[in-house]
Amino acid sequence: MTTAIDHLSRTLSALADPTRRAILTRLSAGEATVNELAGPLPMSLPAVSRHLKVLEQAGLITRGRTRQWRPCRLEAKPLEDVADWVAAYRRFWEGGFDRLDEHLRELQGGAEDA
Amino acid sequence: MTTAIDHLSRTLSALADPTRRAILTRLSAGEATVNELAGPLPMSLPAVSRHLKVLEQAGLITRGRTRQWRPCRLEAKPLEDVADWVAAYRRFWEGGFDRLDEHLRELQGGAEDA
Repeated sequence: MTTAIDHLSRTLSALADPTRRAILTRLSAGEATVNELAGPLPMSLPAVSRHLKVLEQAGLITRGRTRQWRPCRLEAKPLEDVADWVAAYRRFWEGGFDRLDEHLRELQGGAEDA
Repeated sequence: MTTAIDHLSRTLSALADPTRRAILTRLSAGEATVNELAGPLPMSLPAVSRHLKVLEQAGLITRGRTRQWRPCRLEAKPLEDVADWVAAYRRFWEGGFDRLDEHLRELQGGAEDA
C-alpha cells in the first residue's frame, strides 16, 4: 500500500522466477562464482548476471568484496521474512475446521438465497 | 527453468504486491465481496477486480458461483506450497553454524589470497 516497493514485495518478486530459485538452491550448498552458477543454466552469462542483480537488490544474496571472483552467497533474512509472513496462514491448510466452516457457510448461504 | 509459468512462480508473483497481500489478510477473516474488499482500499473498483483476477489465476482465492455477489474466499494450498519451499532454507536463519562457517571461509580465503 506504499508507493515505494516494500521489502517483502521485492523479495517475493525476486523469488517468482525458477532460475533465481535454482540459483538460491545452488548457493544453499555453499558460495559460488558467477561462472559456477552459470554452468548448468541454459542462458548467457549476462542473463545470469541480471538474475544475480535482482537477487542482490532483494538482499537474497551478497557478493564477496575481497576476492576478485566475488563469490555469491545466500542471505537468509529475506527468506525468514517470507516464512514469517506465510506462517500466519498455516491454520488454513492445517486442521479440518475450515472445511466444516465452509460447509456451514454454504448451508447458510443456501438458506438465504431460498 | 520451464517456459510456461510454473505454479510456484505464479503464486510468488501474485503475492509480490502489498494490496494483494492485504486482500488475503482480509479474506483470512472470512469471505468478502468485491465491494467489501474495495471499501478500505485507495483505488477504483476495476483496479481491485484486476488484483482479484491475479489472485484467482494463482489459485489463492476462489469466487462463489451460486450467489450473484460472488464472494471471494481464501484458498490456502498455494500458500502451503510457499511455506514448504521456504522451509528448506530454515537452517540458514536458525542456529549459528552459518556464521562460524562464514568465519572459517573468510580465514581460509585470506590464507589463499596471501
